[in-house]
Amino acid sequence: MLSGAEVAQHKTRSSCWVIINSKAYNVTEYLDRHPGGATILLQYAGQDATAIYEPIHPKGTIERFLEPDKHLGPVDPTTYTPSNPPKSESDQDGEPQDPDLRNIPRLLSLCLSLHDIERAAQKLLSRPAYIYYASAADALGALQNNADDWRKITLRPRVMRNVRRIDTSRTLLGCRVKHPFFIAPAARAGLAHEDGELCLARGAARMGVGYCVSSVASFPHGDISRAFYENNGGKYDALWFQLYVANERAVTLERIAAAKEGGYKALVITVDSPVIGKREDDERYRAEVSAESLASSFSQEPPLSPPTGDGARNDEGDPLPLRGVHSSTFNWDDLGWIREAWQNSGPIALKGIQTAEDAALAVEYGVNAIYLSNHGGRQCDDAPSSIQTLLEIRRFYPWIIEDRKVEIYLDGGVRRGADIVKALCLGATAVSLGRPFMYSVAMGNEGVVRAIQRKCRNV
Amino acid sequence: MLSGAEVAQHKTRSSCWVIINSKAYNVTEYLDRHPGGATILLQYAGQDATAIYEPIHPKGTIERFLEPDKHLGPVDPTTYTPSNPPKSESDQDGEPQDPDLRNIPRLLSLCLSLHDIERAAQKLLSRPAYIYYASAADALGALQNNADDWRKITLRPRVMRNVRRIDTSRTLLGCRVKHPFFIAPAARAGLAHEDGELCLARGAARMGVGYCVSSVASFPHGDISRAFYENNGGKYDALWFQLYVANERAVTLERIAAAKEGGYKALVITVDSPVIGKREDDERYRAEVSAESLASSFSQEPPLSPPTGDGARNDEGDPLPLRGVHSSTFNWDDLGWIREAWQNSGPIALKGIQTAEDAALAVEYGVNAIYLSNHGGRQCDDAPSSIQTLLEIRRFYPWIIEDRKVEIYLDGGVRRGADIVKALCLGATAVSLGRPFMYSVAMGNEGVVRAIQRKCRNV
Amino acid sequence: MLSGAEVAQHKTRSSCWVIINSKAYNVTEYLDRHPGGATILLQYAGQDATAIYEPIHPKGTIERFLEPDKHLGPVDPTTYTPSNPPKSESDQDGEPQDPDLRNIPRLLSLCLSLHDIERAAQKLLSRPAYIYYASAADALGALQNNADDWRKITLRPRVMRNVRRIDTSRTLLGCRVKHPFFIAPAARAGLAHEDGELCLARGAARMGVGYCVSSVASFPHGDISRAFYENNGGKYDALWFQLYVANERAVTLERIAAAKEGGYKALVITVDSPVIGKREDDERYRAEVSAESLASSFSQEPPLSPPTGDGARNDEGDPLPLRGVHSSTFNWDDLGWIREAWQNSGPIALKGIQTAEDAALAVEYGVNAIYLSNHGGRQCDDAPSSIQTLLEIRRFYPWIIEDRKVEIYLDGGVRRGADIVKALCLGATAVSLGRPFMYSVAMGNEGVVRAIQRKCRNV
Amino acid sequence: MLSGAEVAQHKTRSSCWVIINSKAYNVTEYLDRHPGGATILLQYAGQDATAIYEPIHPKGTIERFLEPDKHLGPVDPTTYTPSNPPKSESDQDGEPQDPDLRNIPRLLSLCLSLHDIERAAQKLLSRPAYIYYASAADALGALQNNADDWRKITLRPRVMRNVRRIDTSRTLLGCRVKHPFFIAPAARAGLAHEDGELCLARGAARMGVGYCVSSVASFPHGDISRAFYENNGGKYDALWFQLYVANERAVTLERIAAAKEGGYKALVITVDSPVIGKREDDERYRAEVSAESLASSFSQEPPLSPPTGDGARNDEGDPLPLRGVHSSTFNWDDLGWIREAWQNSGPIALKGIQTAEDAALAVEYGVNAIYLSNHGGRQCDDAPSSIQTLLEIRRFYPWIIEDRKVEIYLDGGVRRGADIVKALCLGATAVSLGRPFMYSVAMGNEGVVRAIQRKCRNV
Repeated sequence: MLSGAEVAQHKTRSSCWVIINSKAYNVTEYLDRHPGGATILLQYAGQDATAIYEPIHPKGTIERFLEPDKHLGPVDPTTYTPSNPPKSESDQDGEPQDPDLRNIPRLLSLCLSLHDIERAAQKLLSRPAYIYYASAADALGALQNNADDWRKITLRPRVMRNVRRIDTSRTLLGCRVKHPFFIAPAARAGLAHEDGELCLARGAARMGVGYCVSSVASFPHGDISRAFYENNGGKYDALWFQLYVANERAVTLERIAAAKEGGYKALVITVDSPVIGKREDDERYRAEVSAESLASSFSQEPPLSPPTGDGARNDEGDPLPLRGVHSSTFNWDDLGWIREAWQNSGPIALKGIQTAEDAALAVEYGVNAIYLSNHGGRQCDDAPSSIQTLLEIRRFYPWIIEDRKVEIYLDGGVRRGADIVKALCLGATAVSLGRPFMYSVAMGNEGVVRAIQRKCRNV
Repeated sequence: MLSGAEVAQHKTRSSCWVIINSKAYNVTEYLDRHPGGATILLQYAGQDATAIYEPIHPKGTIERFLEPDKHLGPVDPTTYTPSNPPKSESDQDGEPQDPDLRNIPRLLSLCLSLHDIERAAQKLLSRPAYIYYASAADALGALQNNADDWRKITLRPRVMRNVRRIDTSRTLLGCRVKHPFFIAPAARAGLAHEDGELCLARGAARMGVGYCVSSVASFPHGDISRAFYENNGGKYDALWFQLYVANERAVTLERIAAAKEGGYKALVITVDSPVIGKREDDERYRAEVSAESLASSFSQEPPLSPPTGDGARNDEGDPLPLRGVHSSTFNWDDLGWIREAWQNSGPIALKGIQTAEDAALAVEYGVNAIYLSNHGGRQCDDAPSSIQTLLEIRRFYPWIIEDRKVEIYLDGGVRRGADIVKALCLGATAVSLGRPFMYSVAMGNEGVVRAIQRKCRNV
Repeated sequence: MLSGAEVAQHKTRSSCWVIINSKAYNVTEYLDRHPGGATILLQYAGQDATAIYEPIHPKGTIERFLEPDKHLGPVDPTTYTPSNPPKSESDQDGEPQDPDLRNIPRLLSLCLSLHDIERAAQKLLSRPAYIYYASAADALGALQNNADDWRKITLRPRVMRNVRRIDTSRTLLGCRVKHPFFIAPAARAGLAHEDGELCLARGAARMGVGYCVSSVASFPHGDISRAFYENNGGKYDALWFQLYVANERAVTLERIAAAKEGGYKALVITVDSPVIGKREDDERYRAEVSAESLASSFSQEPPLSPPTGDGARNDEGDPLPLRGVHSSTFNWDDLGWIREAWQNSGPIALKGIQTAEDAALAVEYGVNAIYLSNHGGRQCDDAPSSIQTLLEIRRFYPWIIEDRKVEIYLDGGVRRGADIVKALCLGATAVSLGRPFMYSVAMGNEGVVRAIQRKCRNV
Repeated sequence: MLSGAEVAQHKTRSSCWVIINSKAYNVTEYLDRHPGGATILLQYAGQDATAIYEPIHPKGTIERFLEPDKHLGPVDPTTYTPSNPPKSESDQDGEPQDPDLRNIPRLLSLCLSLHDIERAAQKLLSRPAYIYYASAADALGALQNNADDWRKITLRPRVMRNVRRIDTSRTLLGCRVKHPFFIAPAARAGLAHEDGELCLARGAARMGVGYCVSSVASFPHGDISRAFYENNGGKYDALWFQLYVANERAVTLERIAAAKEGGYKALVITVDSPVIGKREDDERYRAEVSAESLASSFSQEPPLSPPTGDGARNDEGDPLPLRGVHSSTFNWDDLGWIREAWQNSGPIALKGIQTAEDAALAVEYGVNAIYLSNHGGRQCDDAPSSIQTLLEIRRFYPWIIEDRKVEIYLDGGVRRGADIVKALCLGATAVSLGRPFMYSVAMGNEGVVRAIQRKCRNV
């Protein structure tokens, strides 16, 4: 059995150990492969990292991705200081905490809109969790478009219509739902609540709302689908799988297999992230944490150079940098082998369409749904909002809407019932919401239920 | 005779009594029928509710709507604590009150515009009253449109015209008025002043201005019309009745009967409220009050579920929720039986037209006036302002203006004389104002007179 | 000789005396004729009003307008308290005054733009003076247009042109000036400085800039023209007379006579003020002062009623209210008798044209210049800016610009040299500035010179 | 050897001496020729001015421009107080300085965008240096256009493209660079760092980025080119010379000679500054400093008059004012003698084109590149942004882009990678950035490298 002191000696780039759940791991060689970057690992080099690791990684991640010979075995828990979870924003202030601030039933009773849910979540979420959910690309142009463009569309209320019987239920990609909106895929609900995606699955199933689970969930996909099907009263089945196409085809195939195995009813392929967006608030938080932790090592910091990658080389023969965990080569022809792997286990949608031209291409390639999205403004600065893309389609490729060969989904800035009405009037089949549901998870199952109720209040 | 202690035992949903004007009432079964919702009743369960009840309900309301067997008889006034009226916003602050702040002649002398009147009223109104008047639907989009759109229209001042003799008097729906604006219907003037609608009736009659009284007045409609006709100097008669078409036809017919009996000269039917808008500020105030009162009961709160309604069922056989007190089935054909009940007692106007198409339909259905309104932005988020609808009519159905078969009214954000001029230039017969007059009521009869003078200053 | 105590007894509407320059006057009957309203007189009833009277009225005003029998003779100056001039905004604060704040050479040296001059003036002007100059009509819509519209026009800089020799001098209405701007007429420069209009005349003459003197100057027009001609070095003569057409033709004729006698070279007739605009800030200041002075009399205040006027009656036989001191009947035909009275003593311009249609009419009526202006935003809410009117003329009546039969002036929001360039490029002959020069007067002759230099810096 | 006391006696306009690097100079006659104006010299009259002089002037400036007989010889350094460099903005506050605030590696590690670099620089730069770099003309209209217009253009992201191999390197005016942006010319990098332009040259050369050096550099142009070529690894050569055409042709010819001698590869002639813009913040700073220094002399200040110039006279025979150090006569024909002097030592570009018409003229005159720029908003208020000019060219002279006879550069407000993408998509060959690199110089060589990395992060 190792001691904390022994581990503490391996705290450099040339020999880096960390403790997770009372076990030590040698991550020296893994540093450059870590999807979250080497810095965060180095920050915990020689120390316990459990509190940081847990909410981000699905169970079994380290066992799966780290070679067995790097598993160094148990560490005596009395010989090291356990890591602390990051503080919440309100803790941060150092002010004495009003316990009412975290009384969840009280918080929920005051949530009259999704904006209220976001504000409530800010009181509950850890600072890095809130920043991770809230951050967006570059100068926040696309995020702003998402928020602004809904206001540019106004409703024209007709009067004196019999509206006694309203039915908002419908069929989305063959699945029955009670409302024309669903939960958009978003990574790492575990940052918000220990039950993470399970809360979303339970809430969606109970309320008859669709849920598209992220590739990058904090729970194994089988657990999430189980939570959904145990709560749907046998009635609702709009549980879909969001697929990131990875750099390594094996990873992608593994994900498709998990989707099939978990009983997911549709495959929603994200097409807008050949590289990961530069989310400055998120990077800033990490830079600040690093600056604090590594304050002493500034002077000997190596010259900045891009991490080298997978052997590809540019015209000058220089090695090409690694571009992130998602595939940078993914293109229309790849739909072939993905379809093959999916074996017609359900419809396929493309998420992240941002131009009318690509919408038309998607139809041509025979997908079942196009999902207009700028990835919550997290990828490309100044990208158009999805409602803008929908207007573009209406204007330049109206047949996409009229022919009804594909269903049309969209997300981005949907916060009010009126936004949903606008999208449906303009041709969308349904809309989806990401961040608001992530925030609602901070208040557990009831938070998710409340968020759904806030969107379908008058029904 | 009951004692306060006895009443106090009935403070739950399963047995709920309240005291009003020294009498106890059993409202247990009435809870779910209460148009203002069950929460407010539960908040005063087992207690005196007089100070809350009085300013909102016309005299005799409880006697009329609560079955006689629920009237439990007098309570000994020495055995319970009377309820306090809600504090005003300035009381709220806890600061020592400058008595000048509430010196009404002084306040009035400083009111140079309707904005000043609103600010003065904020010092006098109770917090819930101000919030009730000021609140609007959802994200306040329609309210904002009302305020903004006037600025988008500018005047083109012609010069060197002899303007020595100006006459603004005219005939509206056959009634003589001195100015091209009238008091718009708005519910519950009793929240602002103990004389409520009577102040409005007196001020309007004295100054020769029209007044359209709300269905939901704090005084019986007969009292209001009496106050009007006693003060009009025999000259002005533009007293109209605003009609909400209720869920139950009997209620509607009763209202029409009251209009005829009270000598109201026109029927102004509101067509824009098949459900009541979600006015978040108002709901938030109530949620906050509830959260305080019911703090202890959070843990045992029942799961949220929509209130069930009148027996209608959806396609799945589930009961349809009650959609509020106004009719959700009201449509063009209903004009038939309303006209019949009204027996040609005067012209009919439709209030709440928000599209040129509906304006044209209204003409086709033979009404005497269309009243463009988005209900002060209280119904539908992002609804167009009425001036926007007027521009739409000018562009797409100009004959509605040119043929002069219907009079055209509008309200929403009118605050300046220049706004009135703009509306008239663009084809309106007259405009109306709601909130400013509700605020003026806080300063009694003289407040109403001042508000009218502020709108016709140079005459 | 009267005593202060005697005068102090006449402090009511039924008997109102005031002391000015140690003489008592009975203004009881004059109250309702006072162009500045009765309230201000009543405020000083029974007291000394010299400090208030002096900066506003040209010398000899009271002698001229008050009947001789109301002149009650000298008051013993030891028997009453002299009135204090109103405090400046900075005095108001009660903070200890930094004497540097009022060091005029220092202030001037820091004035790099006209905005700086305004800020400096705020430190020097009395509160009512600043408010009087700064205030504008109603909701400040027209004032805002004046400020905003310049930004909507951008310059297109051509490069590689020889700009070594630039000459901005030109001839305006036959008068030679060094720069394409002049000082716009504005009332009551005496509020800003004891030498008032004399400072403007001296500065304009020295710097070769035109000056259009207001009808409502604080000095006799002869004194002002003398100050101009004594300082022009025999070179510049653009001294013009702004004419308000008064209710009473005799007053107008008197003004024209003064213009001829004073050697004014052109007559600039204001056409945009048949009634005086509602300048709320100004009215608010007066209402606040009244509220303080008359605090005790609120209870017995008479019911509000419009002041009755000159015998005209409306269709109902009610007397028409007096509409202010300017003529409300002034129209195109009146140009006849005005021309006759002016006897071709120089060109005639119409100031206050706000539409292309009226511009065309002005040309038709043979005036020599049109002066586009919305009166500094002080008359009509939401009036177009003058640059907007110029664009309108370019578009709909381009011949007005092309034919060059009339000169075109404009004012309103001109603050930067670039504004002048924009106006000239679009067809204006020259521009003028009002408020900035009034502010500059607060710093005396040198202030005016500095303001002129700030507008022609690179020459 | 002179003493400080002796020098101190010459502290007036009629006899003005200053000490620089322990030597005294008589600048009395030079006062009016000093390009930076007389005021700054008078401020240090009789005193040491070294700390002010050094960062602004290339070595040897005073030796070169002041006649030898004005060199008064060495001053005993123990007899006068050396001048202090101006404080930084943070020093200014008087607060105790957190040393971390100036820890450059730490600051750099937190710089995630060019905005961060600006903020970091504010902590390091002296107040006048920051103001000098940041200031812009007049009401900042053009500066605002530069910032705003990028937002008006949005990207239309296409998806599912293989983006594995991205190569941003290209050839600009025949020089090889790794990225489609270069360092724009900006004066006086010495204000930011003692190595000034040398930092820019080293950083650009190392990173393979182009650098266009200003005529008005703080180092001799030979030193700068040496720093570039010593660091380029033999691979990159995009080192260009920005040419201000001076009032005196000799100065211009000298500059061209320096460009040739220093091995500069292209001549970039600035065409937008026949007079120097009125940069109010900069002037205000100087006015405030003067007001403090010269406080006592206000009373005897001479009347303001424009400085007289070079003998030219206007139509009235008055001497024309000097219009600044740049030529006011520079026009298209001057390209002849400039080309001749340059002797085809490389391509020629015109910097400061702001209209499509002038872009077309430039092509006609055979230049190799047009460089759209409004001089960082420092010259002409309300000038169009360069991206606006590019759009104008696309619309009205598309052949300029299509024919590819000229390369097209632009600067102004480029802060994000997305801005560069927008410019390239619309037809630009490359963009450049000025202020961000000046700010980066405050952090030395590494600052420049970091700024370059921030602009090419994903490569």
